[in-house]
Amino acid sequence: MPLIRRLAIIGVGLIGGSLARVLREKGEVDEVVGIGRGEANLKKAVELGVIDSYSLDPVAGVVGADMVFIATPVCSIAGMVDKIAPGLGQGCIVTDGGSVKGEIVAPCEGIMPDGTFFVGGHPIAGTENSGVEASFSTLYQGKRCILTPTDRTDREALAKVARMWELAGSEVVEMDVEKHDHVVAAISHLPHMVAYSLVNAVGSYDRFAESILKYSAGGFRDFTRIASSDPAMWRDIALMNRGAVLEMMDYFQEHLGRLRKLVDAGDGDGLHDFFLSSKKSRDAIL
Amino acid sequence: MPLIRRLAIIGVGLIGGSLARVLREKGEVDEVVGIGRGEANLKKAVELGVIDSYSLDPVAGVVGADMVFIATPVCSIAGMVDKIAPGLGQGCIVTDGGSVKGEIVAPCEGIMPDGTFFVGGHPIAGTENSGVEASFSTLYQGKRCILTPTDRTDREALAKVARMWELAGSEVVEMDVEKHDHVVAAISHLPHMVAYSLVNAVGSYDRFAESILKYSAGGFRDFTRIASSDPAMWRDIALMNRGAVLEMMDYFQEHLGRLRKLVDAGDGDGLHDFFLSSKKSRDAIL
Ligand SMILES: NC(=O)c1ccc[n+]([C@@H]2O[C@H](COP(=O)([O-])OP(=O)(O)OC[C@H]3O[C@@H](n4cnc5c(N)ncnc54)[C@H](OP(=O)(O)O)[C@@H]3O)[C@@H](O)[C@H]2O)c1
Ligand SMILES: NC(=O)c1ccc[n+]([C@@H]2O[C@H](COP(=O)([O-])OP(=O)(O)OC[C@H]3O[C@@H](n4cnc5c(N)ncnc54)[C@H](OP(=O)(O)O)[C@@H]3O)[C@@H](O)[C@H]2O)c1
Repeated sequence: MPLIRRLAIIGVGLIGGSLARVLREKGEVDEVVGIGRGEANLKKAVELGVIDSYSLDPVAGVVGADMVFIATPVCSIAGMVDKIAPGLGQGCIVTDGGSVKGEIVAPCEGIMPDGTFFVGGHPIAGTENSGVEASFSTLYQGKRCILTPTDRTDREALAKVARMWELAGSEVVEMDVEKHDHVVAAISHLPHMVAYSLVNAVGSYDRFAESILKYSAGGFRDFTRIASSDPAMWRDIALMNRGAVLEMMDYFQEHLGRLRKLVDAGDGDGLHDFFLSSKKSRDAIL
Repeated sequence: MPLIRRLAIIGVGLIGGSLARVLREKGEVDEVVGIGRGEANLKKAVELGVIDSYSLDPVAGVVGADMVFIATPVCSIAGMVDKIAPGLGQGCIVTDGGSVKGEIVAPCEGIMPDGTFFVGGHPIAGTENSGVEASFSTLYQGKRCILTPTDRTDREALAKVARMWELAGSEVVEMDVEKHDHVVAAISHLPHMVAYSLVNAVGSYDRFAESILKYSAGGFRDFTRIASSDPAMWRDIALMNRGAVLEMMDYFQEHLGRLRKLVDAGDGDGLHDFFLSSKKSRDAIL
């Protein structure tokens, strides 16, 4: 028997589309309904075999679903839960894939009608591309998915969402909302802030008549690939995880400032130690 | 007829070894002599078919060479030219692969005996690995090689070095020493300083009981791959290109500081513009 009978995906893009694909491929869902704001994208999703049918009305779309996965931008998730609440049937589980949890989980828990369950989630998987065309069934394979239960979280609902991500190929990790937001600020949000800033700096450097970006080689390209990510998504993340992002930016600036002092002082031993400790940390996660 | 009769490679590591490999593979060199500080590495280079023979004495090693390629750390290159000067035959060309040119080219030009020629060079190619075992013949394929002629540079010698890099598969670009040092500070040295700092920041973040590096996913790994580079090489580069590296670090800090202000202010439009301009620059070099 499949894990899910009727799955409603709100926001059929990279994250929502990839989950639908893998669960269909594994036969773990009977029926997938896509919910979105416009027909063009949803028609494409049907053509691509990502969803079976679609609805432009979120309330109608979730009727009869035993699992609802919200994969819209982080700023819209709590509002979406509020909107669909009247359509949710008894026992229905609502979960999300938003990259921030603090500003989402508490409001969503407050909204959910009796007999329905909210579980906050965040797959640590993605690419710099977005939209349903960029989705693929192996996106979550071998990745981690963080779930952020609270003391209000229903244990059975949590177990079912965990099972869903395991079936998608991921290792499920539980942590509290605050830890989640700091961990992703460090390993994901900070690197994006840094990459976007680096490309803006190098791209606007105008000491010479030509743009120096054309001399960039593989190292620079790999390093800045994440600066190709969707600006709207990252605006929302920066807004919604403001505190942790600022904390990590400041923490990074301290380290960069320390390195700047070593370069300025021409401190060869200090530079070597700084680079070596970084190399050791990096090699350990290879 | 091969371009080079007898090629002496001083420093048979990633950069020197890869050049030897490709020129041998293409039949563009009759004989390759490796020069180094210890036998173990040079014996390995002979076994790997990278060089034909070797010498531990730089002066003896360059005797009879029509081309000498110095691929030792940047701090050692000018000293090496000084050391080999007595062994250089008439017409011999000495060139290097050092990642910095300002502190190398002028002193080397001053040292070269009459009737011998120095040409500064820097292949914009590399990996985070080093040593002769990491060398491979296609390293330079499809890459750029920057040559930095001055008004003292012999035109025929320059043309021969350019031809050598073209045969290695690279597009040759000429620019003056000062421009070179700023361009590479921006596209290569700055990203390394940033990546090393980022890994040190995230790796030392101790708000939680466990290291958060273990949650890093593909994005973080790609982004920080260059932090695995050789600490000694990067110490030398930071020491030898100090001015341009500091200038680019400050320029980057300005951009990061601007982004920090936008995050702090919760300025959605400003954040979107910042990310979008970066994405546009990045996508243009894809
Ligand atoms: N990309 C990543 O690397 C990644 C990784 C982990 C988690 N996430 C999170 O996953 C969620 C989706 O990201 P994604 O990469 O899948 O983005 P995406 O490919 O752009 O998909 C998001 C979908 O949401 C809908 N949508 C867009 N703006 C909306 C709005 N203002 N209100 C309601 N619906 C909207 C769109 O569908 P319609 O046009 O059909 O409405 C769109 O297809 C975000 O919360 C993000 O933080 C992303
Ligand atoms: N790696 C890159 O990404 C890259 C890219 C472009 C340019 N470069 C430049 O190329 C040069 C070589 O880099 P690489 O990556 O090839 O390094 P590598 O693999 O470590 O090779 C350098 C070689 O130089 C010799 N050497 C090391 N330290 C020395 C010293 N203090 N004095 C004299 N010889 C020494 C060693 O050979 P023995 O032990 O046999 O003496 C070693 O095999 C550097 O100037 C670097 O800036 C590197």
